[in-house]
Amino acid sequence: MTEERNIERIKAIRQLLDEGRRAEAAELIVPLLPPDQAEIFEELSVEEQTRLLKFIEVGEAANIIEFLDDDDAASLAEHLDIKVLIRVLNEMEPDEAADLLGDIDPKLRQQSLDRMTDSEEVQSLLQYPDDSAGGLMTSDYYVFHQETRVGKAFDAIRQQPLQDEEIPYIYAIDDQERLTGIARLADLIRAHPEQPLQTVADPQFVSIEATADQEVAAQLLSKYDLLALPVLDENERLLGVITVDDAIEALEEEATEDFYKSAGILSPRDQQTAKSDLMVRGPIWKSWMVRLPFLLLTMIGGLLAGGVIGIYEEALETIVILAFFIPVVMNMGGNSGTQSVGIFIRGYVLGHIDPKSFAKHILREVAVGLGLGIILGFVAGLMAGLWQGDFQIGLVVGLSLLCTVTLATALGFLVPLIINKLNIDPAVASEPVITTINDFTGMLIYFFFASLFIAGLS
Amino acid sequence: MTEERNIERIKAIRQLLDEGRRAEAAELIVPLLPPDQAEIFEELSVEEQTRLLKFIEVGEAANIIEFLDDDDAASLAEHLDIKVLIRVLNEMEPDEAADLLGDIDPKLRQQSLDRMTDSEEVQSLLQYPDDSAGGLMTSDYYVFHQETRVGKAFDAIRQQPLQDEEIPYIYAIDDQERLTGIARLADLIRAHPEQPLQTVADPQFVSIEATADQEVAAQLLSKYDLLALPVLDENERLLGVITVDDAIEALEEEATEDFYKSAGILSPRDQQTAKSDLMVRGPIWKSWMVRLPFLLLTMIGGLLAGGVIGIYEEALETIVILAFFIPVVMNMGGNSGTQSVGIFIRGYVLGHIDPKSFAKHILREVAVGLGLGIILGFVAGLMAGLWQGDFQIGLVVGLSLLCTVTLATALGFLVPLIINKLNIDPAVASEPVITTINDFTGMLIYFFFASLFIAGLS
Repeated sequence: MTEERNIERIKAIRQLLDEGRRAEAAELIVPLLPPDQAEIFEELSVEEQTRLLKFIEVGEAANIIEFLDDDDAASLAEHLDIKVLIRVLNEMEPDEAADLLGDIDPKLRQQSLDRMTDSEEVQSLLQYPDDSAGGLMTSDYYVFHQETRVGKAFDAIRQQPLQDEEIPYIYAIDDQERLTGIARLADLIRAHPEQPLQTVADPQFVSIEATADQEVAAQLLSKYDLLALPVLDENERLLGVITVDDAIEALEEEATEDFYKSAGILSPRDQQTAKSDLMVRGPIWKSWMVRLPFLLLTMIGGLLAGGVIGIYEEALETIVILAFFIPVVMNMGGNSGTQSVGIFIRGYVLGHIDPKSFAKHILREVAVGLGLGIILGFVAGLMAGLWQGDFQIGLVVGLSLLCTVTLATALGFLVPLIINKLNIDPAVASEPVITTINDFTGMLIYFFFASLFIAGLS
Repeated sequence: MTEERNIERIKAIRQLLDEGRRAEAAELIVPLLPPDQAEIFEELSVEEQTRLLKFIEVGEAANIIEFLDDDDAASLAEHLDIKVLIRVLNEMEPDEAADLLGDIDPKLRQQSLDRMTDSEEVQSLLQYPDDSAGGLMTSDYYVFHQETRVGKAFDAIRQQPLQDEEIPYIYAIDDQERLTGIARLADLIRAHPEQPLQTVADPQFVSIEATADQEVAAQLLSKYDLLALPVLDENERLLGVITVDDAIEALEEEATEDFYKSAGILSPRDQQTAKSDLMVRGPIWKSWMVRLPFLLLTMIGGLLAGGVIGIYEEALETIVILAFFIPVVMNMGGNSGTQSVGIFIRGYVLGHIDPKSFAKHILREVAVGLGLGIILGFVAGLMAGLWQGDFQIGLVVGLSLLCTVTLATALGFLVPLIINKLNIDPAVASEPVITTINDFTGMLIYFFFASLFIAGLS
């Protein structure tokens, strides 16, 4: 977006760094907002980053690192002098610090934790996996006992600014640290200073367990239009809060992942190699690695389809024009199947598909496929017949398309539903399985109809 | 998600409505949160909805309608008694009211605007298209002159609760109504009551013009981790504010749209027919309508590929085993092209692809394609050679795959880049164009190598 301006700035920074004018280089970065600073940092080498960082105030440095990609942040952290690293970690939001520590060398992680000022907080966040609700939460929010007077809460807010002051909710807990209500800052402003917090806090709230998937957390924040979501343990004690910005990031990550998976680009969740910028700008061998598995798998389908044709070698020798329509049969089966898988995956992610209503979803999809198959089969059959001046071949092509499209459309739902029941992520495995089945069955159907309707074949 | 519990509740509500016990039916809805209430409403018929709504307090009704799908909200509004509708509209957030009014019958819209209490506010929001930043913004936020004392601002906040109190920012403007700074509620709490607002407000902020695309607004909110984004006119005057919840919705909409488009499912933006729930639960003919165009277009590719085979009819008659490898050549070209388009579209949406660096992107993709082509060509060529015991055919298959995969991968970037330059949405048009080109060129390449390397062929 701001690419062009950035490129100029990066060039200038590089030149200043080369000339040893580091302070001046830093001055080109300091006036920007942290996300823009991070964007520039990502274009620099780790050496350039560390040289620059020495001339940037530590709080600012913490902000920049928070906005870096996980991988970039980790490699920068590992290159920093440990004293600098610890000062930066102390300034970072606890959840971001925990994320960073989770990504770096375990030895360095332990050393850092030993020397950080508030390490218990970060340590407790570190125990949750990155992609769980617990892994997304921060410990940086205002929480008071429910009997606290509003005025007292205000005093505390005045005296203890948070690192990240963006959470506009105040959390009320009882003697057992259980969350009992949530108040908005605005509600507090409107309340009388002598009122206890529980008279202001709303006892009806949405929450999530720490072990839940981050996707569920993001969906809750989105569905209920929340700015932050409290995370509870099994005893309803308040453990942390997930802010909406982290939820957006999680949603974008998941959307990118689903998008890629549906195009046959594999990315093991913990490696995150298939991030959009990596696929467009990263090392080329990484692109190969994430794209090859799917292609190799589907190659089997193509070869199997060839095997089917091989069985009908004699028929093909007799009537060689049969080969002309191999592409259209394969093509239509593949494309209609891909559409169905796409609809399934998106509906599944958004919660519109209920794996329990198996039969209902499949029946609907068969009806959709039948309609598409009739229309496509008619058009292709007509064109084949006109082209060859032979309506026997037209009939064969038409019927083949009807069956192939209907089958492929239904399989587009059936296969992911089954894969889902096997507890495999349907977004990863569906496409190769379906492509293979479609290629294979498409040729079977086609040559079956050919041997049935064309005189002189078997 | 909460499907099962909901189904029970809906059954109970239906039964109570049938028995004329509307108040009791309403009681089953009232204790829920608005998004859950809306979920239940969406399962009911419009008649049931209107009957139920009479027993729900008007503020609550407004909340429910805000969370309904646009289509459902519009049809309910058109069925309501106009007096009820106007009372509901008065209670709705201005941006939601404007969205609803934009979706209903123009006559009813005018009647409603004539009788609403704060219609100017809504009227001014109505002038922006639904998918622009202006169409997403609300007029429900706190704005003060920059010289206002903090204490005075507090008094105003106390006396004028907003319909939606979730915006935790206070906006400071100058004499010309230009936005000069943004303060957080928490900053105000920490300030002295006599301080003027401009000493608290941050003069460095991100904003957007009203005419910009909603996607850009959502990206800014996401990139800068904002809870709300100010919308300005060309003179930097503050027109409204976009809240993060609307941005999330916009992002999900766009992601769904892109996802579908990449699977060849067309949805004209203004019709929004391809929404996930519609594709999974809606009328079957709608599914046909959005899926057919892509399938019919790509059918041309399949038939053209057949035409190419037709040209080589004699070669095929001589060596019929050539037909065995038509599927694998088509298959690999199609799949590697699809991967590239997927990567392009996602990178483009997330802003990682700069259409100006045309050559750089294409060159990188050619390198990726070449690597994939070499590996896939080698594997397929080897298998073909072993299967047929004939390494001439292996060579033909291998070289064909190398060229087809490289070409398809590069086209996966080239075609969307060109389509983008023509100001057509690349997500819609890329797949059919590429599929058609790939099918056609795949066969050309294959039979070209066959006639080159296999003795006895022309």
